[in-house]
Amino acid sequence: METLKATAEGVIAIQAKEVRAFGTEAPDKTLQQIKINRRIPTPHDVEIEILYCGVCHSDLHTARNEWHGTIYPCVPGHEIIGKVVNVGTHVSKFKVGDHAAVGCMVDSCRECQYCKEDLEQYCEEGNTATYNSPDRHLGMQTYGGYSENIVVDEAYVLRVPENLDLAAAAPLLCAGVTTYSPLKHWNVGPGKKVGIVGLGGLGHMAVKLSKAMGAEVVVYTTSVSKVEDAKRLGADDVVLSKDKNEMLRYAGKLHFVLDAVSAQHDVNAYLSQLRADGTLVLVGAPEHPLPVAAFSLIPYRRTFAGSMIGGIAETQEMLDFCGKHNIVSDIEMINIQQINEAYERLLKGDVRYRFVIDMASLKKYV
Amino acid sequence: METLKATAEGVIAIQAKEVRAFGTEAPDKTLQQIKINRRIPTPHDVEIEILYCGVCHSDLHTARNEWHGTIYPCVPGHEIIGKVVNVGTHVSKFKVGDHAAVGCMVDSCRECQYCKEDLEQYCEEGNTATYNSPDRHLGMQTYGGYSENIVVDEAYVLRVPENLDLAAAAPLLCAGVTTYSPLKHWNVGPGKKVGIVGLGGLGHMAVKLSKAMGAEVVVYTTSVSKVEDAKRLGADDVVLSKDKNEMLRYAGKLHFVLDAVSAQHDVNAYLSQLRADGTLVLVGAPEHPLPVAAFSLIPYRRTFAGSMIGGIAETQEMLDFCGKHNIVSDIEMINIQQINEAYERLLKGDVRYRFVIDMASLKKYV
Repeated sequence: METLKATAEGVIAIQAKEVRAFGTEAPDKTLQQIKINRRIPTPHDVEIEILYCGVCHSDLHTARNEWHGTIYPCVPGHEIIGKVVNVGTHVSKFKVGDHAAVGCMVDSCRECQYCKEDLEQYCEEGNTATYNSPDRHLGMQTYGGYSENIVVDEAYVLRVPENLDLAAAAPLLCAGVTTYSPLKHWNVGPGKKVGIVGLGGLGHMAVKLSKAMGAEVVVYTTSVSKVEDAKRLGADDVVLSKDKNEMLRYAGKLHFVLDAVSAQHDVNAYLSQLRADGTLVLVGAPEHPLPVAAFSLIPYRRTFAGSMIGGIAETQEMLDFCGKHNIVSDIEMINIQQINEAYERLLKGDVRYRFVIDMASLKKYV
Repeated sequence: METLKATAEGVIAIQAKEVRAFGTEAPDKTLQQIKINRRIPTPHDVEIEILYCGVCHSDLHTARNEWHGTIYPCVPGHEIIGKVVNVGTHVSKFKVGDHAAVGCMVDSCRECQYCKEDLEQYCEEGNTATYNSPDRHLGMQTYGGYSENIVVDEAYVLRVPENLDLAAAAPLLCAGVTTYSPLKHWNVGPGKKVGIVGLGGLGHMAVKLSKAMGAEVVVYTTSVSKVEDAKRLGADDVVLSKDKNEMLRYAGKLHFVLDAVSAQHDVNAYLSQLRADGTLVLVGAPEHPLPVAAFSLIPYRRTFAGSMIGGIAETQEMLDFCGKHNIVSDIEMINIQQINEAYERLLKGDVRYRFVIDMASLKKYV
């Protein structure tokens, strides 16, 4: 297969090869082994043999078309860690044999105000998501990390700190940066009291990261069974959010709340925990609008914000921070053949705290 | 009448005198002339003969107990300008004959973190509002500016720039600072594109202030009849918010939106106007919670905030800014005897843009 593409170096022919992947053909079908095309590296590309891929709730939303707009076949996966097996002629950051990582984006326009400000995630043209985005090279949709390999421009490939366990580091590429970015942006650090709502894939990373940043960390959970775990992860205190008296303990006292709940919930209850000029950031995406009372915001100049992953430079910064503080995700390793079962468990919140696929399993069955 | 009060200077006797005011005895009663007690100035107090008092929608909400918690009799009014007629022995900022102003607060604890940060409006004990708050001296509720005079600690009294028309400056004390404070806090100035939603008492001040700060100002209105007026007030452009195509013109382009609408409305439509890291600040207080879609906030790291009046130092800064830029409110002057009719017109939005009471009218009828 060959496609022509105009680049800064002139028109080049893009060649592709077939590789194994795990994907789905329709919203109501399970995931199974399929074949997809990957391009042969162009001058700036890095080809990565995928070793581990984390399982994000977005994978499930997209596979099942819950956010609409899924193009099939769909191959999810954007928490990718692997080994460089081939590099284009102009690649300078990576060499064959290096470990490398890919997160939620594989490209963007590189010319708009946001791309120039290292905010490629907010690219005016829309960033090229790792899966289910228009592929800038082959003209079809992008395919994610549930596959043998991936080919990505080196500008969107991350370095992995050597001290981190590769499998447990995979979830840093989405769950890690999605929580690191707002914690950093809103200056979480020493002297700050921070609330983390929802102890799941994102929430458990937020606890580890905000603690490493030096903040005092309070975890909010509806589940008594998670209290001890929250403390083990580093929480200074845990509030059972269903108990109104418990909720009074930090009312008006927190500088920042990271809300990682994707189910419908009452954000006013958590806004009430903020002191003046405090911010609650939503990183989960509940399906329906959340009612916000004017009096939850006005009397204390509080803000209710959202945040989406992080830029490429910030993702690297997060990985380096995790390397320095020896932070990885708590994971449960699965084989790719268990992915449909893992999705069902994900829906029940039955994972502590992230599934990671051992991608070697894909090669066991041809 | 005499009350004892412990002060830094020891226990002092607070004496009071009866003065004329306009107030209401119950939620469903009209306002009429009544008598209230005002304290004789204690050492740090300033007694102001009230010349003009603006009519804020909060006056109506409180008189009719629409926010609950109104204590009767209720004397509204917190946009007060007058002349100093008496000062306590320790007063240094004012002398008899000066013009002086009082806004939404007449006191606060002065010791909490917020009071110390010049954010008395967010005082941990609750600030002492100009009306319907526990009076720290006489032990009853505070009475507002629909009265002959008011007695306020000099620390909560403002100076009025000499070049401003006194009647038209009165609304600066609430409508002015309520809009100035968030515009300032979120760095509105040259190079910034700012949206103002709702052209009423607050909105028309926001247009004048943001324009004077150097921003590019876009007014959003549902009313074709306000387009020309918006431009006269300084707007660079006007968007008819009911027209979906019109709403596309600034989608993703504004740095800041000030939303001064107190009726229920769709904030998602205005959040969509913000560029990345943009903020929409609510200064109106709709009765019911406003539904906010996660995807209105997350993809561009947008924030939805609230803001309430401003601190005392900031209120003075706003008045000085208005003096420098010769900014006052557009007003319609009324006599106090027209206040009930004015409330009915306020409910219909039938005022451009603020009623101000000529308080001399109170003395005409004993």
